[in-house]
Amino acid sequence: MNNRVHNFSAGPCTLPLEVLEEAREEFVNYQESGMSLIEMSHRGKHFDSVHSNAIQLAREVFEVPDDFSILFLQGGATLQFSMIPMNLLADSKKAAYVDSGSWGSAAIADARIYGDVYIAWDGNECGYSRMPSLGEIHIKANTRYLHITSNETIGGIRFVEWPDVNVPLVSDMSSDYMSRRIPWQLFDVVYGGVQKNLGPAGMAVIFVRQSILSKCNKSLGRYLRYDLQSEKNSMLNTPPVFPIYLLGKVLRWMKLGGGIEAMERAAEEKAALLYYAIDNSSDYFRSPVSVNCRSVMNVVFRLPTSDLENLFLQEANAAGFVNLKGHRSVGGCRASIYNAMPRSSVELLVDFMKSFQLSNPA
Amino acid sequence: MNNRVHNFSAGPCTLPLEVLEEAREEFVNYQESGMSLIEMSHRGKHFDSVHSNAIQLAREVFEVPDDFSILFLQGGATLQFSMIPMNLLADSKKAAYVDSGSWGSAAIADARIYGDVYIAWDGNECGYSRMPSLGEIHIKANTRYLHITSNETIGGIRFVEWPDVNVPLVSDMSSDYMSRRIPWQLFDVVYGGVQKNLGPAGMAVIFVRQSILSKCNKSLGRYLRYDLQSEKNSMLNTPPVFPIYLLGKVLRWMKLGGGIEAMERAAEEKAALLYYAIDNSSDYFRSPVSVNCRSVMNVVFRLPTSDLENLFLQEANAAGFVNLKGHRSVGGCRASIYNAMPRSSVELLVDFMKSFQLSNPA
Repeated sequence: MNNRVHNFSAGPCTLPLEVLEEAREEFVNYQESGMSLIEMSHRGKHFDSVHSNAIQLAREVFEVPDDFSILFLQGGATLQFSMIPMNLLADSKKAAYVDSGSWGSAAIADARIYGDVYIAWDGNECGYSRMPSLGEIHIKANTRYLHITSNETIGGIRFVEWPDVNVPLVSDMSSDYMSRRIPWQLFDVVYGGVQKNLGPAGMAVIFVRQSILSKCNKSLGRYLRYDLQSEKNSMLNTPPVFPIYLLGKVLRWMKLGGGIEAMERAAEEKAALLYYAIDNSSDYFRSPVSVNCRSVMNVVFRLPTSDLENLFLQEANAAGFVNLKGHRSVGGCRASIYNAMPRSSVELLVDFMKSFQLSNPA
Repeated sequence: MNNRVHNFSAGPCTLPLEVLEEAREEFVNYQESGMSLIEMSHRGKHFDSVHSNAIQLAREVFEVPDDFSILFLQGGATLQFSMIPMNLLADSKKAAYVDSGSWGSAAIADARIYGDVYIAWDGNECGYSRMPSLGEIHIKANTRYLHITSNETIGGIRFVEWPDVNVPLVSDMSSDYMSRRIPWQLFDVVYGGVQKNLGPAGMAVIFVRQSILSKCNKSLGRYLRYDLQSEKNSMLNTPPVFPIYLLGKVLRWMKLGGGIEAMERAAEEKAALLYYAIDNSSDYFRSPVSVNCRSVMNVVFRLPTSDLENLFLQEANAAGFVNLKGHRSVGGCRASIYNAMPRSSVELLVDFMKSFQLSNPA
């Protein structure tokens, strides 16, 4: 494939080319079975093997301890915004939320429907330009969990250090899955859509501490119950076959690429290249977020004027650097550099930024 | 592809070969964009066109009137078992359900969590061998809707005529979508997973009467609200890109194949071939369901002994007729003959059944 672009989309986003090519190869006739994998019964031997393989690889490359269940559920992280309070607030406890931007706010709005929710730190006051520091999160008595968004895809900020609080954490990690180690002892639930670091859209991966399952709310429809989904190994109904299949391939690609340690190092190096270019552009390119909270997945930046931003996006696009436009709610530019983004693409983007600046002085 | 099997799986199941081949062709580099469709932003022009095309084709080939919204939601029909009562029973009304087998019962169990539900007809008493006749469904005062399962995939029975009641119908049509015309005036909601007649697993298509949207429950998490999902054209969060894409291709294949009228005729002809073979086998093959409620999608049959059934399944499999085993909850054999199942495969299965009977007398 010789016209492949550098795809900086925030999600769905670039996937490893070798994974796509492998999937194409076996798409119509899976393992000489005479049918496509997507035509097979989800209770049959082929899919059974695809499914267990994906779960096992997830356990391995995420380094998940045995006392966590791994669930593959539909509805994305957005359905989890409801499922978490539905399942965890069965007792009369409260839930604390950090409002760190678009996604934190969305999680809060849904949680309020299902329980007694308070904002333990409000980023609205600083324009969502940073995450709370360790002492800033205030947990009330009788709090069941603290919900955080470890990386805000739109705002481009992340928790560099995990909050040190006396309640279990629940984190939306949609946009930084497999870019950092997870200190499992802090968490009851970790969740995220797969369409950024892990595969095609249509599924979330949810890690749930097994010891909380028996205490989860049972007065819910079957699909919405963590305890049942765990008991049924996410096969309560027909699972999203194709996303699970590709997830397995992406996880294997990550394992062969050195696992979580290598992914974390690569992510930090790619981010460093971009932030270095921004910081050394004599303020031509500017990062609007606090230096100590910069996302390593979503690098948000501005140019001197919106005219220059538009020209930059247009010329970048023509040069094969696509989907660099910032989210419509914040404007500007954003380079999403998830795990499957080659370092070489980031290097080329940095070169392009430099030459754009030279040709278009402020 | 020369080893393609005859795949009688109940779902996921056989899809049109030309659709699979087309998808393979453009899988890695979609329309010369330099990326796969599954790598693209769901807010970009390519997916936007895929999405509107699928909705428009669904409206066209299902012959959906303008006053119904078409939703593409994750979680399968199973999540709809919860969403229907959650959304529709916001007032203090009751819901009537027909218990017609495995799927009807599953819908009832979830609905009971969310509202005042009663069984308007109980098929358990006849071993789920038939659907209720028109006069047998008893609707109480203050009933919001009657829920039916138009075709029971496991039991192999269907409503040949739609219930004539004085409340709106809600129907699970997962296993008979696009095999029969829908008399829209009777319905408030029609829903079904796509993984049988319409595409790969990971999505449900839901048709909702627009006039009920403003009365739907608003005290629900965003993903679960019909009114919001309709307002956002099912793009409230990242949609299941790949299932929507393939759904569009399958719908186009159906349109080119003559639309709903041709699909219905083909379905009935294929079913007739199989039931004729069963009925004319001197009771070697037997259908366990009432003649006037036989499914045209899932043809359930038994052989004289379970030894013969096992041998039949084994030899059929070796001859390329795969996934003919009945559901584990009922045993026996089942040939699921959805729209993408070629008539020639059914004819060959009939030949195989005849020769098996000759070689293996009871």
